[in-house]
Amino acid sequence: MLLRVRAAVAQLAAGLGAQPPAEARGAGAGAGAGAGRGSPPPAAFCRPAFLQLTPEELRRADDHAGRAVQSPRDGRRRLPWSSGYAEVINAGKSQHNEDQACCEVVFVEQRPSPRGWLSSREGSEELDGGRKGFYFHYWALFDGHAGSGAAVMASERLHLHICEQLRDLVEILQDPSPPPVCLPREAQTGSADPNQMSYAEDRGEVLNDAVPRFHLEKAVSHESLVIGAIENAFKHMDDQIERERASQHLAGGCCALAAIYLMGKFYVANAGDSRAIIIRNGEIIPMSREFTPETERQRLQFLALLRPELLGKEFTHLEFPRRIQPKELGKKMLYRDQNMNGWAYKKIEEDDLKFPLIFGEGKKARMMATIGVTRGLGDHDLKVFSSNIHIKPFLSCFPEVRVYDLTQYEHCPDDVLVLGTDGLWDVTNDEEVAAVVMEVLTSYEPNDPCRYTMVAQELVVRSRGVLKERGWRLANDKLGSGDDISVFVIPLGGPGNYT
Amino acid sequence: MLLRVRAAVAQLAAGLGAQPPAEARGAGAGAGAGAGRGSPPPAAFCRPAFLQLTPEELRRADDHAGRAVQSPRDGRRRLPWSSGYAEVINAGKSQHNEDQACCEVVFVEQRPSPRGWLSSREGSEELDGGRKGFYFHYWALFDGHAGSGAAVMASERLHLHICEQLRDLVEILQDPSPPPVCLPREAQTGSADPNQMSYAEDRGEVLNDAVPRFHLEKAVSHESLVIGAIENAFKHMDDQIERERASQHLAGGCCALAAIYLMGKFYVANAGDSRAIIIRNGEIIPMSREFTPETERQRLQFLALLRPELLGKEFTHLEFPRRIQPKELGKKMLYRDQNMNGWAYKKIEEDDLKFPLIFGEGKKARMMATIGVTRGLGDHDLKVFSSNIHIKPFLSCFPEVRVYDLTQYEHCPDDVLVLGTDGLWDVTNDEEVAAVVMEVLTSYEPNDPCRYTMVAQELVVRSRGVLKERGWRLANDKLGSGDDISVFVIPLGGPGNYT
Repeated sequence: MLLRVRAAVAQLAAGLGAQPPAEARGAGAGAGAGAGRGSPPPAAFCRPAFLQLTPEELRRADDHAGRAVQSPRDGRRRLPWSSGYAEVINAGKSQHNEDQACCEVVFVEQRPSPRGWLSSREGSEELDGGRKGFYFHYWALFDGHAGSGAAVMASERLHLHICEQLRDLVEILQDPSPPPVCLPREAQTGSADPNQMSYAEDRGEVLNDAVPRFHLEKAVSHESLVIGAIENAFKHMDDQIERERASQHLAGGCCALAAIYLMGKFYVANAGDSRAIIIRNGEIIPMSREFTPETERQRLQFLALLRPELLGKEFTHLEFPRRIQPKELGKKMLYRDQNMNGWAYKKIEEDDLKFPLIFGEGKKARMMATIGVTRGLGDHDLKVFSSNIHIKPFLSCFPEVRVYDLTQYEHCPDDVLVLGTDGLWDVTNDEEVAAVVMEVLTSYEPNDPCRYTMVAQELVVRSRGVLKERGWRLANDKLGSGDDISVFVIPLGGPGNYT
Repeated sequence: MLLRVRAAVAQLAAGLGAQPPAEARGAGAGAGAGAGRGSPPPAAFCRPAFLQLTPEELRRADDHAGRAVQSPRDGRRRLPWSSGYAEVINAGKSQHNEDQACCEVVFVEQRPSPRGWLSSREGSEELDGGRKGFYFHYWALFDGHAGSGAAVMASERLHLHICEQLRDLVEILQDPSPPPVCLPREAQTGSADPNQMSYAEDRGEVLNDAVPRFHLEKAVSHESLVIGAIENAFKHMDDQIERERASQHLAGGCCALAAIYLMGKFYVANAGDSRAIIIRNGEIIPMSREFTPETERQRLQFLALLRPELLGKEFTHLEFPRRIQPKELGKKMLYRDQNMNGWAYKKIEEDDLKFPLIFGEGKKARMMATIGVTRGLGDHDLKVFSSNIHIKPFLSCFPEVRVYDLTQYEHCPDDVLVLGTDGLWDVTNDEEVAAVVMEVLTSYEPNDPCRYTMVAQELVVRSRGVLKERGWRLANDKLGSGDDISVFVIPLGGPGNYT
């Protein structure tokens, strides 16, 4: 089943920024119903369109006390490849579920260009009634913070930005020869001029022993072009949030994790602290890493060192294991500078009494005492509490993209790609997730289309736990995740799944 | 056998920068002999002291035509742990062998501090006639470029800087309890004050939900302190080269790879494109990675983006697959920005006609068309050819330090740590090195003290090849390494080796 988004693509291409009707997103219905506890949910609250929630279901999904797990229902629309999805709201840390999800099959139509560089060539595929292009499959999770606006907009638009970036590459990606380094001007045809100049030649001089070094042209793969397209799509998405945040009342920011299936490969793009793993024949293959003040410490410290004005005289770029007290001036304290991985002692000076740029450990690590993730979308207005110091210059909207070639391995129906927000991973590690996947899948027939949804539900339920006197508890009586939890389980193989 | 360097340590501590007598370094002897082909070797040329070369041997070692392999000889001083070492000069690319090597056992004597924080405690070891301290073993390779001055000085001093950094840590490293975060002032005793303040407390305000976040003190391990000490030692070494380069006529720069054995662990510190691997039970464990314009592209582009003045209007921070010609202005060309791993097309503008900061591929990749390594020591005067643009701001003197705990595994006599300059690795990959190691070691008795030297020699010979009509050729007739080649082979276990 193909969920076409042509209308939305056309809208984006035409520069129309209007949101689709709220009904289409499973939202707003509660406002019309007039029932339920107290005031209707604000317009910003919605759940993924593919859940097709009724007003009553939407109210249940928004209930922090019950924390009912939501999944696409039997008899309603099935997700591509029979992918599984499940989600649950947090235990009360924010009014609504600030996670969002999206699953689409997107047609990338070649941009009309009568004089395009390849237009006269044979071999570019004509699909779908004469239009040239290709499809990609797309699954994405957005974990919002400080409001759901950025996450909602990103869930509605990121795939369209990816589509936009790919539109210029339709012919190039379909051509088996290496991508041209240089495209001719629109009026021209034929391949780019292979001539080039070395730095030395350019200056009319001879460079030490370097002259023969610069005559090679770097080969760039098709895969690199797709990665570049996804990276720039994240940037354009972030720019759009920045432009429209005032008119659309978009609050906050979000982590973004997207899996794009295109021409036999999965591209997993991550900006934030969600996580993706592949479980293949019981083996765990990490498909992302998290971007936090700890993992990105050196990038952040480097920026702070080069641009100290961004610290507003409140922060020091040095890391200390704890806050220094004024009375400790002159003592020797452990510190870590941007080019260090180890620690050393330094004599405490006046400047060290400022608050460290990065502080805390693990889930409690914060940048500028404010934020625990260092990549994502939005957050353009985020400032350090009670100050005029902006956080955004330190955040990156660029994802890390990892590639998995599906054609290199014969997958069985039990091989899956799991995407989860940190609500899942905070309490359930990779091995535990893999164990649940295997346990649940073996209890369903390989061709049962519900099996991946069952896995997703089980992962969410086990991470949420059950409500006891002392809060949400896991089977081992440890605290369950009080965060929003969202999970996709995407099968990598098995007959009949790739529909 | 312990090669004490007390005199040198004392000299360093006293701030005396004089070099040790040339005789001690196997150099200068040729100048007195008056024999040999033509003029005597310049004073800068020397080989590692532990080779104990005679004047005649020194001349042979300097012969590009013969390329005789040099190793510590039987009957002379043996290296600690019976480590193997071998080297060979290049095929003519520079007048002398610009690699240098050092192997020492260094005593780290606690800095005299009658009021030191631990001085009243029991348990700090008294060694070696009442002096408190410990030993570390040290092996290092320095691959010079554009002159041998930096490499020679680094080979004579880096271990002394490491010793200096460790002197303040003698008591802390010998105390099994975690290192104190804050040391009291010299006049004080007792432990540091555990109190601390959060950012919010400091401002007298309450921070969103962040208040309880900052009450933890980050635990710092002993291992982290050693890493920090090594990192800062590299920095001090680089500073010393900068200070003394004029008076000592130090030319060029060097990559530095050092293995430090301390308290049961190996710390392998690498700045440059040398490489270290452990071969354990046939398995290869990488102990370093290379720092080149390609591997450090994003760090370099980030710096160039934030500090464009460092580019002197000659370079662009963007990467292009080849040099752009002025007539291509307005066309679309593949590029890569600092936050991208993929590639995308951009319209060529005037600014893109500048030379790319990073250009070329693999061994031919250069930063600013000048240098192929991006970390190391020295190079303070290095400029882009025929310009006033300095390279040094882009180079880092900080190593990456990897740790290997020898106590976690029972090693056999065939388990080794191999250190090699790029002359080795350019033509012999990890698997080939491991195969040579195993092949040679099996042909010697496990307790034969020569066996590791034999491995080092074989690795050098196989990477150099033999001289044929068409130059130095490997067994497979491919081109051998024309570079200087230096190799240490350090046994990780086996009775009698740890002497």
